[in-house]
Amino acid sequence: MPSADPRYPVDPWRIREDSFDPASIARSETIFALANGWLGMRGSFEEGRCTATPGTYINGFFEETPIAYGETAYGYAKNRQVMVNVADAKVIRLFVDDEPLDLSTGALLSYERALDLREGVLDRKLRWRSPGGRDVEVRVRRLVSLTRQHAAAIEYSAAVSGRPVRLRLESAINADVPNAAAGADPRVGSHLLQRPLVTAGVSAAGRSASLRQETRNTKLALACAVTHDVQLPAGGTVKESAAAGAEEAVFRVEIAAAPGTALRLVKYIGYRASREHAARGLADRAAEAAAEAAALGFDALCAEQANLLASFWRRADVRIEGDDGLQQGLRFNIWSLLQSAGRDGRTSLAAKGLTGQGYEGHYFWDTEIYALPFFVYTKPEIARSLLLYRVNLLDKARARAAEMSQRGALYPWRTIGGEETSPYYPAGTAQYHIDADIVHALRKYLDAVPDRDLLLQGGAEMVFETARLWADLGDFIPDENGEFCINEVTGPDEYSALVDNNLYTNMMARENLEFAAALADRLGAEDVEEMRRISRAISLAPSEIERWRAAARRMRIPYDRDRGIHPQDDRFLSRARWDFEGTPAENYPLLLHYHPLVIYRHQVLKQPDVVLAQVLLGWRFSAADRKRNYDYYNPLTTGDSSLSPCIQSVAAAELGYTEEAYRYFTRTARMDLDDVNGNAADGAHIAAMAGTWISVVYGFAGMRDAHGRLSFSPRLPARWTRLSFCLLHRGRSLDVEVTHDSASYRLREGGEITFSHRGRTVTLRQGEAQSFSLEPQLECVIFDLDGVLTDTAELHYRAWKRCADELGLPFDRTVNERLKGVSRRDSLRIILRNAGISMPEGRQAAAAERKNDHYRELIGAIAPGDLLPGIPDLLRRLRSDGVKTAIASVSHNAAEVVQRLSIGPLIDCLVDSRGVVKGKPDPEVFFAAAEALGVPFENCAGIEDAQAGVEAIRAAGMFAVGVGAGLKGADWTVKSTAEITARSLKDRFSRWRPARRA
Amino acid sequence: MPSADPRYPVDPWRIREDSFDPASIARSETIFALANGWLGMRGSFEEGRCTATPGTYINGFFEETPIAYGETAYGYAKNRQVMVNVADAKVIRLFVDDEPLDLSTGALLSYERALDLREGVLDRKLRWRSPGGRDVEVRVRRLVSLTRQHAAAIEYSAAVSGRPVRLRLESAINADVPNAAAGADPRVGSHLLQRPLVTAGVSAAGRSASLRQETRNTKLALACAVTHDVQLPAGGTVKESAAAGAEEAVFRVEIAAAPGTALRLVKYIGYRASREHAARGLADRAAEAAAEAAALGFDALCAEQANLLASFWRRADVRIEGDDGLQQGLRFNIWSLLQSAGRDGRTSLAAKGLTGQGYEGHYFWDTEIYALPFFVYTKPEIARSLLLYRVNLLDKARARAAEMSQRGALYPWRTIGGEETSPYYPAGTAQYHIDADIVHALRKYLDAVPDRDLLLQGGAEMVFETARLWADLGDFIPDENGEFCINEVTGPDEYSALVDNNLYTNMMARENLEFAAALADRLGAEDVEEMRRISRAISLAPSEIERWRAAARRMRIPYDRDRGIHPQDDRFLSRARWDFEGTPAENYPLLLHYHPLVIYRHQVLKQPDVVLAQVLLGWRFSAADRKRNYDYYNPLTTGDSSLSPCIQSVAAAELGYTEEAYRYFTRTARMDLDDVNGNAADGAHIAAMAGTWISVVYGFAGMRDAHGRLSFSPRLPARWTRLSFCLLHRGRSLDVEVTHDSASYRLREGGEITFSHRGRTVTLRQGEAQSFSLEPQLECVIFDLDGVLTDTAELHYRAWKRCADELGLPFDRTVNERLKGVSRRDSLRIILRNAGISMPEGRQAAAAERKNDHYRELIGAIAPGDLLPGIPDLLRRLRSDGVKTAIASVSHNAAEVVQRLSIGPLIDCLVDSRGVVKGKPDPEVFFAAAEALGVPFENCAGIEDAQAGVEAIRAAGMFAVGVGAGLKGADWTVKSTAEITARSLKDRFSRWRPARRA
Repeated sequence: MPSADPRYPVDPWRIREDSFDPASIARSETIFALANGWLGMRGSFEEGRCTATPGTYINGFFEETPIAYGETAYGYAKNRQVMVNVADAKVIRLFVDDEPLDLSTGALLSYERALDLREGVLDRKLRWRSPGGRDVEVRVRRLVSLTRQHAAAIEYSAAVSGRPVRLRLESAINADVPNAAAGADPRVGSHLLQRPLVTAGVSAAGRSASLRQETRNTKLALACAVTHDVQLPAGGTVKESAAAGAEEAVFRVEIAAAPGTALRLVKYIGYRASREHAARGLADRAAEAAAEAAALGFDALCAEQANLLASFWRRADVRIEGDDGLQQGLRFNIWSLLQSAGRDGRTSLAAKGLTGQGYEGHYFWDTEIYALPFFVYTKPEIARSLLLYRVNLLDKARARAAEMSQRGALYPWRTIGGEETSPYYPAGTAQYHIDADIVHALRKYLDAVPDRDLLLQGGAEMVFETARLWADLGDFIPDENGEFCINEVTGPDEYSALVDNNLYTNMMARENLEFAAALADRLGAEDVEEMRRISRAISLAPSEIERWRAAARRMRIPYDRDRGIHPQDDRFLSRARWDFEGTPAENYPLLLHYHPLVIYRHQVLKQPDVVLAQVLLGWRFSAADRKRNYDYYNPLTTGDSSLSPCIQSVAAAELGYTEEAYRYFTRTARMDLDDVNGNAADGAHIAAMAGTWISVVYGFAGMRDAHGRLSFSPRLPARWTRLSFCLLHRGRSLDVEVTHDSASYRLREGGEITFSHRGRTVTLRQGEAQSFSLEPQLECVIFDLDGVLTDTAELHYRAWKRCADELGLPFDRTVNERLKGVSRRDSLRIILRNAGISMPEGRQAAAAERKNDHYRELIGAIAPGDLLPGIPDLLRRLRSDGVKTAIASVSHNAAEVVQRLSIGPLIDCLVDSRGVVKGKPDPEVFFAAAEALGVPFENCAGIEDAQAGVEAIRAAGMFAVGVGAGLKGADWTVKSTAEITARSLKDRFSRWRPARRA
Repeated sequence: MPSADPRYPVDPWRIREDSFDPASIARSETIFALANGWLGMRGSFEEGRCTATPGTYINGFFEETPIAYGETAYGYAKNRQVMVNVADAKVIRLFVDDEPLDLSTGALLSYERALDLREGVLDRKLRWRSPGGRDVEVRVRRLVSLTRQHAAAIEYSAAVSGRPVRLRLESAINADVPNAAAGADPRVGSHLLQRPLVTAGVSAAGRSASLRQETRNTKLALACAVTHDVQLPAGGTVKESAAAGAEEAVFRVEIAAAPGTALRLVKYIGYRASREHAARGLADRAAEAAAEAAALGFDALCAEQANLLASFWRRADVRIEGDDGLQQGLRFNIWSLLQSAGRDGRTSLAAKGLTGQGYEGHYFWDTEIYALPFFVYTKPEIARSLLLYRVNLLDKARARAAEMSQRGALYPWRTIGGEETSPYYPAGTAQYHIDADIVHALRKYLDAVPDRDLLLQGGAEMVFETARLWADLGDFIPDENGEFCINEVTGPDEYSALVDNNLYTNMMARENLEFAAALADRLGAEDVEEMRRISRAISLAPSEIERWRAAARRMRIPYDRDRGIHPQDDRFLSRARWDFEGTPAENYPLLLHYHPLVIYRHQVLKQPDVVLAQVLLGWRFSAADRKRNYDYYNPLTTGDSSLSPCIQSVAAAELGYTEEAYRYFTRTARMDLDDVNGNAADGAHIAAMAGTWISVVYGFAGMRDAHGRLSFSPRLPARWTRLSFCLLHRGRSLDVEVTHDSASYRLREGGEITFSHRGRTVTLRQGEAQSFSLEPQLECVIFDLDGVLTDTAELHYRAWKRCADELGLPFDRTVNERLKGVSRRDSLRIILRNAGISMPEGRQAAAAERKNDHYRELIGAIAPGDLLPGIPDLLRRLRSDGVKTAIASVSHNAAEVVQRLSIGPLIDCLVDSRGVVKGKPDPEVFFAAAEALGVPFENCAGIEDAQAGVEAIRAAGMFAVGVGAGLKGADWTVKSTAEITARSLKDRFSRWRPARRA
């Protein structure tokens, strides 16, 4: 349960602090950072006192320094790239009778700082008594314009309340700013060896000033210009001056102020940057940006900002009722995403956005896998720009692939400028999956936004070149049955490294390969000329596309049949389990307390890997596999990565572990506001913030978008009363609202939309709405066969008895009881164990075959009259009531029995042992029936006569009816099938409330 | 074939250069380096001109600096340790009329430099004409005393031949010396960021001087002192002076020399070092060392040196006749080993000895695995000292284990002071096998040198603590059949990293564990008090020793039954083979041209791994496995490590690939003399040098010493005519001499020795000698059963026919021909393939069983009369001639057939399919028979009637007799067994010369 941190009180739209806390300076600088995707300013005080890391950042503006290796090797990343802290234009120092405003001195009489997310203006108010006893009231409003990429503005007002004083404001552009240094924590950026920026010119004249900076190695240039508007109280003397120093341009204004009068200064700020040192007129262009803002005036800038945000929130807001703290956290996260994402196709979304230098300002897969869905469905133009960033760096990715001895293109694990900059390749370059992640994101975007231009202007090439990488990276390995293996890679989970056939990597690579082949086909058919041009440009031959298909077809997908789970990699299950019980809480995150060798040697996860694959590629997994995977991996997942909880939350929600999903959600929803990880000071966790949107939309609303087909399967946490949001999809705007009782959909804009709700297809026209009850309603009844529909149990007994007699094994009805619901081979094992006899595998197969021969002989005589009491009526009535029916049996002969019973027309679906990996009590056979019929498990009832069967139904989250005595855990137990009528069943079902997983 | 580098002409005992070559300065400094295991001086010219890296090193004297990581992590090695270049006392500058002697100016009239390995004195003679036209004749002799650890001396004579000149000598101790810098090659040491040594005092008075230095971080101190003896020509003026500068102490002497007169200066040098800066009297002790040498005089020092060397060579010399270049190389290598090894239990043997700063002067496993055998068998006191070095660092190894979250002790992969200093853990700390390597070496030493003291004074503790490490590092893994798995380690081959169950590591760990358990037993029985003391000291409980045994017993030993080889690790065979064909020659070594990920992803070896295990632990492998392992891995081995060829050479020699063994040997025997790797300038390849001794003794002489039992199986390369050497073993001194015709053994010293020669036990008393012919002689005949001893072939045909009829499969004698020598299951597969029918595995087993039932029925009727013509006589005659007999059959029923034929008493050994992994044409069954009888394969004949059998015999390197027509490749083909008599067989055998593998 999230208890809102008192630092930032709960408030649906505002982030505010009501007091000044010296210990929280750095953290508040992160929380109150303002940015517009290009220019970012941390929320440090203008006065330059009581600040921690007063950063100003420009997206994509970075310096490079060589990486020092203890021991280097061929192909290592050569240079570190670091987003630099540029000249600070926020500086406005206030002096009261020459005493500087400094909250750590004098007396702070009142203090408040707030950021209204609908206005986008940081607003600070305080009353301060100087050490000399002068009172001053200050209000500062700051904005970084979301409509004007290069502009920001600050309004600084100081009013005098006590006796007359001299007020002086010094407004500066200061180039002498530090860059963040790193300690032992690898998650914090390392320091630059020397100051990255050289000041190349400072000028000040009248109320304007400018300053130029250049990076030493990357040869980038920037200019910052300011111009001031001064409002003076009437009367009094005024002194104004401007000065240009070596590292600072200053504008000063001083007045003698009477009590009740105020000095108001508005500072309009322009920043421009260039990829060339020699860029001409950079300072002029910066001055222009400042002047344009000045011409508009501060209030008009505020109005622009509010207008843009109103329009943004109309699309992007997610409303949660029942939890104001989470509501606030979620909105803050969405706000932060808007602030951080690059919009120009040359920049992306740094791990900490533009709020700090953590992770050195690098772009990771965070953008594509975590942040992109939000933008695709709320701001597709930003999604496009982020993808364009990758397309624009295709040549560098080609060069990197060549350096890594591969064909195609290999994107860098972490970068700003496009080069690989990860100094630790096992958790860097080895994460080849970045290629497939990017293509996954591109495909998701294209599914929601038809965009032929992006495809033809590099997108398709990127898809082909990444497919090429995979086809060349892997090999068809003879010792692995000729399967296509991708060895020596690292998957998303960084607590394993350099593994063979990481499940996530191989599945994502397969998608990449298949998509590339399909795209080549489609373009070859629909865009013949363009496809010809692209093929020529990258020398793409049909034989290569064939290899992509073959690699995809023969891709090794690790699977463990015993457990019915996907191993994370070929060796994962051969590692020892981490000793969680023996690990003290203070030893987390493990990476700070154990050598990588120790961590890699064990079954322990930093973040979901298999489970991430099933969240991204759900349709590739059976429901039973998804459940077993989650149940296996979740206890092994430390969550030492902030990317963990949102994925765990989605996976848990899907399985009906709603409260578990909720707990994970709460860990990220206010991660930075509550400083959950204790490092908010270094910058915001942008990917985790994006993850909260994913948790809500993919998790609690159960949205899925495989192949661009939207579907919903909502499951609201107990504490919430309502959830609503809007999705943009192919130009349509769909409102979704979920309560515990119902889910409603309304097409706000666009001609028509088709999607599915809980397996039902829904079509809406513009303005239309439709609502669906979420109350449990019996949609499907899944019958066990033997002992429920007919008493083949007796036939099984007789067949086993005959078989046991032939083998000279003891066998009676007591032993027979233990065979109910158990597969044939396992039944034989029970009989053998009972007899204390071992038998070679080959002979067991033969014996089981013999039993089946006997059984088949016996079932030859089954007829409709063998249906158990009440069953014929029940089946007919369910059919007429529109309730679906299925048979879930582990028998191999179910189809024949059904046929002889003549109930085929009354049964919608038959799942037998051929379709499943694990028998009861695993829920797989019940999941499979519900999945085949498109019914959510909550709306299914299962009927069983065996304990293992009842357990399987409950594990599937369905209503369990037990037939016979001594069955534990059934939701309803009957003595005979005669008691089960359609009415009694529905009645019982309607009173049932599924047990929620705690 | 080694062509001696003309730089150092072939000469059995001397290393010399006959000309001055500016391009070879650095290399010659390595070759002419002098050292005594503690003090090392590179062979740079005294004059300080035309030098490259005039290094002076003290073993174990190092500086530390923090390692800079691009991205650091918990448990990484913290500091770099670098053996430093200390104050240079070699400096003696000659001025001729104020012109400095500088070989790059003026004219060099003659030049020669030589090092006689029997004298240990570097001797340089030259005549030089100065640019000003003055002629001078110079002779310089230098020694680093092998008898006096802290002393060295230089005799410098200058004679005038033309007109009178002024001669001035400036003899200095110079502290201003550089340390080697590193480039991109990770094999060269990295540079220190700042000068590691601070000069703490310089003094000069009269003819003596001294200088003190201290390291900044490790706080070590050293002093160097010199004293001079001057011999002047009669008459003339003499000027002498002494001066102490900031970084140099100088003694000057100047004379006016008439033609024909000479100036002779002898410089006596003393070095002392201390682990404390504050060490008192260090300079005095250095001066003492110099004074003691001076008191003796230069000629006496030379005599001491020669005496010591005479005694050394008596034990350590290895004589090769037939190849003077290799002879020279081998002696140079042995000399280098003597020079490099520490003797004080506080220092070890650096990768480059004391000849250069390559690999930063670090100690690796090279010492234990490569160098130690030489010392064990020629200078056991040095072997002891090297092991004591490890024992003395046990506490640091304990601390490192704890840091790595393990119990016990973990030795550092590379170190000087005992701390882990490897900056790249995948090829550093991950090489846990260092622990087992050290214990392997300790055990080898103890096998040859009973040394209770070493055991009780830390040796046993080291064995226990390393066993503890293994027991804690590995786990019994359920998914691996409960086997004890050691995951996430790197084996000796550094072209694989972070693998699971590296064969070498697991086998060596098993030895470590077993040895520890056995030692605990032995001490518990024989040294009750001591064992109690040790157990208390390290809290050793009996349950822990049980776990050692269990871990050893259940140790996972990867084995691939299809290929009959040991995979290098669990995943090795699932990797793609390296594209050797597509790799240009200039791309070797691969590590300089491919990213580690690319290398690790493939089947490619830097150096032997499985093959190293079989060289070290041969008795753990069958001969067939050894051959298959070698044949599989050798083509995958690049030899990019200089540690490769000697091991490949030993493995090849053992298999009879003598010429291949010879080629590998030649690659290391003159590695530095011929600069094979092109980096001799950085220092000598000490481990490779030790490897040449291993190649000769373990390879060509076939010495083995498992459990301290010596055995020999010599195989001389074609080019050599004689090989002889001496081994010290448990106080006995055994001379071994091998020619192509014979091997001779003589016990030089010691009461009695027992060893084995080619499987025969030999016992010698002091002074006794024994000689054995190496000419091929028929010692064993190995018979195939079916078709050679009796015609069960017909019975097989009838059994198969009946079986095929039952299954309704076509079968006739043509198909039957293809079944000869083929296993039962494979035979069935051939029949099925012929019929074009597939059959499930389980039913195949049953069908094969049916055939066997028929066959067993048929063989029930076999009687002695069914022996084929001539066989009874042949067997009886071989028996009476003392030739052993064996049956090598793939049949499961061989034993029964032999019994029914009543030939059991005439057969020494029966190997059937149960004993082998792979059937014919694999040689395994023949190897197994020869091994069981202890006969070398060269002295075996095999008799076969099937093509696969003939191929198997030839693959085993035996004499192949083929019975029947159409057999290819047999050495002798007969139509009927009747033709084979004991006489005819011996006759044919005696004329046979096995084909040598090219």
